[in-house]
Amino acid sequence: MELKDIKSPQDIKNLDIATLEDLAGQMRKAILNRTSQIGGHVGPNLGAVETIIAMHYVFDAPKDKLVYDVSHQAFSHKMLTGRADGYLYKEDFAKVGEYTDPKESPEYDIFYAGHTSPALSLCVGLAKARDLKGENHNIVALVGDGALSGGVAFEGLDAGGALDGNLICIFNDNQMAIAENHGGMYSHFTELRETNGTAANNLFKAFGWDYVYVAEGNNVKKMIEVLEKVKDSKHPVVVHVNTQKGEGYAPAEEYRERFHYRNPYSIGSGNLLNIDTGESYTGVFKEFLKSNIKKYPDMLIISSATPEDFGLGPKERKELGANYIDVAIAEQTGVSVMAGAARGGIKVVYAVVSTFLQRAYDQLMEDWAMDNSPAVLNVDSTGIAAITDQTHLGFWDIPMITSIPEVVYLAPANVEEYAAMLDWAINQNQHKVAVREPVYSVEHADYEVDTDYSDLNRFKVTRQGKEIAIIAAGDFYVRGKEVCELLKAKGYDPTLINPRFVSGVDEKLLKDLVADHKVVTTIEDGSLEGGFGQKVAGFLGDTPLKVLNFGLQKKFVDRYDVETLEKEYGLRPEQIAATILKNLE
Amino acid sequence: MELKDIKSPQDIKNLDIATLEDLAGQMRKAILNRTSQIGGHVGPNLGAVETIIAMHYVFDAPKDKLVYDVSHQAFSHKMLTGRADGYLYKEDFAKVGEYTDPKESPEYDIFYAGHTSPALSLCVGLAKARDLKGENHNIVALVGDGALSGGVAFEGLDAGGALDGNLICIFNDNQMAIAENHGGMYSHFTELRETNGTAANNLFKAFGWDYVYVAEGNNVKKMIEVLEKVKDSKHPVVVHVNTQKGEGYAPAEEYRERFHYRNPYSIGSGNLLNIDTGESYTGVFKEFLKSNIKKYPDMLIISSATPEDFGLGPKERKELGANYIDVAIAEQTGVSVMAGAARGGIKVVYAVVSTFLQRAYDQLMEDWAMDNSPAVLNVDSTGIAAITDQTHLGFWDIPMITSIPEVVYLAPANVEEYAAMLDWAINQNQHKVAVREPVYSVEHADYEVDTDYSDLNRFKVTRQGKEIAIIAAGDFYVRGKEVCELLKAKGYDPTLINPRFVSGVDEKLLKDLVADHKVVTTIEDGSLEGGFGQKVAGFLGDTPLKVLNFGLQKKFVDRYDVETLEKEYGLRPEQIAATILKNLE
Repeated sequence: MELKDIKSPQDIKNLDIATLEDLAGQMRKAILNRTSQIGGHVGPNLGAVETIIAMHYVFDAPKDKLVYDVSHQAFSHKMLTGRADGYLYKEDFAKVGEYTDPKESPEYDIFYAGHTSPALSLCVGLAKARDLKGENHNIVALVGDGALSGGVAFEGLDAGGALDGNLICIFNDNQMAIAENHGGMYSHFTELRETNGTAANNLFKAFGWDYVYVAEGNNVKKMIEVLEKVKDSKHPVVVHVNTQKGEGYAPAEEYRERFHYRNPYSIGSGNLLNIDTGESYTGVFKEFLKSNIKKYPDMLIISSATPEDFGLGPKERKELGANYIDVAIAEQTGVSVMAGAARGGIKVVYAVVSTFLQRAYDQLMEDWAMDNSPAVLNVDSTGIAAITDQTHLGFWDIPMITSIPEVVYLAPANVEEYAAMLDWAINQNQHKVAVREPVYSVEHADYEVDTDYSDLNRFKVTRQGKEIAIIAAGDFYVRGKEVCELLKAKGYDPTLINPRFVSGVDEKLLKDLVADHKVVTTIEDGSLEGGFGQKVAGFLGDTPLKVLNFGLQKKFVDRYDVETLEKEYGLRPEQIAATILKNLE
Repeated sequence: MELKDIKSPQDIKNLDIATLEDLAGQMRKAILNRTSQIGGHVGPNLGAVETIIAMHYVFDAPKDKLVYDVSHQAFSHKMLTGRADGYLYKEDFAKVGEYTDPKESPEYDIFYAGHTSPALSLCVGLAKARDLKGENHNIVALVGDGALSGGVAFEGLDAGGALDGNLICIFNDNQMAIAENHGGMYSHFTELRETNGTAANNLFKAFGWDYVYVAEGNNVKKMIEVLEKVKDSKHPVVVHVNTQKGEGYAPAEEYRERFHYRNPYSIGSGNLLNIDTGESYTGVFKEFLKSNIKKYPDMLIISSATPEDFGLGPKERKELGANYIDVAIAEQTGVSVMAGAARGGIKVVYAVVSTFLQRAYDQLMEDWAMDNSPAVLNVDSTGIAAITDQTHLGFWDIPMITSIPEVVYLAPANVEEYAAMLDWAINQNQHKVAVREPVYSVEHADYEVDTDYSDLNRFKVTRQGKEIAIIAAGDFYVRGKEVCELLKAKGYDPTLINPRFVSGVDEKLLKDLVADHKVVTTIEDGSLEGGFGQKVAGFLGDTPLKVLNFGLQKKFVDRYDVETLEKEYGLRPEQIAATILKNLE
């Protein structure tokens, strides 16, 4: 049986074990084929091949509902539901996304589920719908790859354990999150593995679930046997599956963290095809940590499972020792630990990915902002150029963070300003400071960068002109500069402003613009609604100034080309300049 | 020993058990004294008296850190740390808030912790700070009253279980959340209670904690003995305490849900002093459920532990049967179950309190908004008049919800519109609809209320005038009407607009205002930054119209008087009218 000929799960129902094993080999090759060329989640997908083959062999999708949490392990599911071309042929790669996608496959992909941990709660909803409609099918969640550490996963275990109908949770235990797993429960999983699932103490049973253990999760025959047994069960059951992350590909088995997600690489060596050794904002952040840990020996650095994003590889983490804590995929806890440690009187830095910080909105508000807990929150992967999957957009952090009182949100425009802001933030004891790590392009300051930001919401005029004011924030400051140049070339004399702060406005500076300006333009690399520019528009509403807000629209966009989307949103320098001129008329 | 003479925990250190028991009796009376007169959390505080006496007897606060989760059970802590007057004397009630408060007591109150569940994560932060500073003291969290069902509590158990120093979690198991507890783990807690803590299966041990069980949690002698044993322990330990919610007050023991939080009542009978039997928005919601459950027999109604807020008492919940699910204090799961059930093809309504919905920002974005999951989210306790504790403000829901794509947020202005919007929302299959339940005052429509809202962001002109346009949203529509009357009395002819939608703007209507208006005023009962008015200001920025935004400032305010705060924010009708006229000049 050739992988390319599989058009639906029906095509594997009558295959014998040897053929399924051969198919697993083809699927692994296809995973490597795709990810080595365009990048992607390597380890999670390699580890889950047999589990997913068994799921489709035993259950009857789409009647039975197969849900993935997180769906970055679902490549095999896509290959078995008519989308193998997206892994086999380069010209078809773009047709298939990284995550499950109900638009891509309304029949087989139930949810987007790009973020970890909610699958069991979503499945409780599916189960309630099934039962209320009097239907009768299996609901199966494949949970794992660290997803169990997120709070909502436990809530889902709790809610699921109280159901009295069918609900099957396959817990893919590959002993890893993105980095290694952290937390007390992982010793318990070790205990379960070492006792072949017979330990008297059992987390899943404590939540009310039945429990089955499978030691050989990469053995398709064993997986089929176990799933046949739990199929149509009338009570929630956890199938705890021991798998090897990166199974079948030596580099991914050895370097499990690096192969969680990998940019294009050589299949032979596993080495990256393009190594960017140039200057980077990550380098600035790393240097900031290095110099401050010397100054503050009791400083705490927090990560929630993504330390490599912030330049902290295994070596650096080992060196940091007790000064470093990885709370696992658990951003609520990341923020609360930050607030608690700050209250305990030490310097604290929490580095987090913008899209995942969404999970901690309430902790930002109630545990951090409200309290007197000066700490530094470094927000990564922000704006249009960071991550282009709709489930991982970096568009929403400005509206989210700047709607919360007391949090100062700084948007540095270049390497020097980023370094200066981080340094100011750690060395002061008054404010709760978030810093938006730039992404778009590595820039250098052509003005003198301030070292003190304690005078909040003080915008910086980097070019004094008249008639037109351009307030361009963060990594879009350079865009403002480009617009400024275009206007100068047409004989105008614009004012250019780097606001530095996106959580408030410089009231005096804005009011002073009234005297000799007509149009105020804001440019930000984030969603407009609830963002920075609307604060400016709201503040200037009672003046004769026109205010033009440029930024991203409140829309989900998926796997877009950055420049194309910018054009659609009128954000290219020449478009912005043209709009300004139109409004001067 | 008289309670009034206790000025610090030192004052109880040398008391004998009999005196402590007498003190417990005095503290109970003081709790009833306060709550019966001004309302408050009755049951949680009555149940925790002995536990907290033992905590202060055994541990040495403020050196040892005592953290409360949720702090609505912490009245006894306040009484033992110099704040007994706030419970004994009516004139001092206002000096003491409902929750722990570092401003009220910087020494003894470590966090605000008005929301449930993050205490263990906060304590992990405190523990890291202690260890990095080389200090040596106990860190003790009193967790309970349902707080364990929130996801971050499990994350905290996970992070805490991996520590290798002192951390003590006192789990106050009173078998209740706000309503009864829900979820699979509660059977497990029953098992632990029934085996006197000896069951082989143990959730806390699975997370890596040591474990001690106390059957008689309302026995101060037993509690002291146990806490003496765990004091200075060098490994995280859970002390599972079986208590009686409402202990010592018959009505609260019998009606545990009603006495979780109680408005002023007669101590003798337990009956409420003022029963409002008049018309209410809750009544509208209840009627909406009643009529639609008949129409859609497979409809699902979700609550996260606050069903009484939505008119669902024990009787109604029983009648609803399988059509009702309480996911416990777990709003992330509330939203995910809503999305999952909608994806499963049934009608779904989730009723949730604004401030608690903050916990589910990521689920709103990733699980609900992104997917095609039409459902109805009813948001309660919104705006300035709902809850005046800074930890429970209803100010933030408009910025939070309206920064998320695809979610339609409706703000009804009166009883008829609320009913019509709920009905439209449940009967359509296109949109994900949130409805902002009005709070401020029960109003009736003096215009014809629409039944169809599928033409999104269509504002309604209820009075056509000129020069001045007043766009007044939701329960502040009536405020706009008052302003309109004031202006009419001065000879002006304002346009009055009910936007109905706060998640977007009526572009055509707004552009048309340019022709014969000069000033556009927005009025909303929510935070301005990121809110509705700034969308209007941003949209009209390129027009000559002046835009004035009225609403709440981005500030934490605590236990305020509504009218006083309105005055401070310039929100009284005469203030708004004056500001408009000033801008007409």
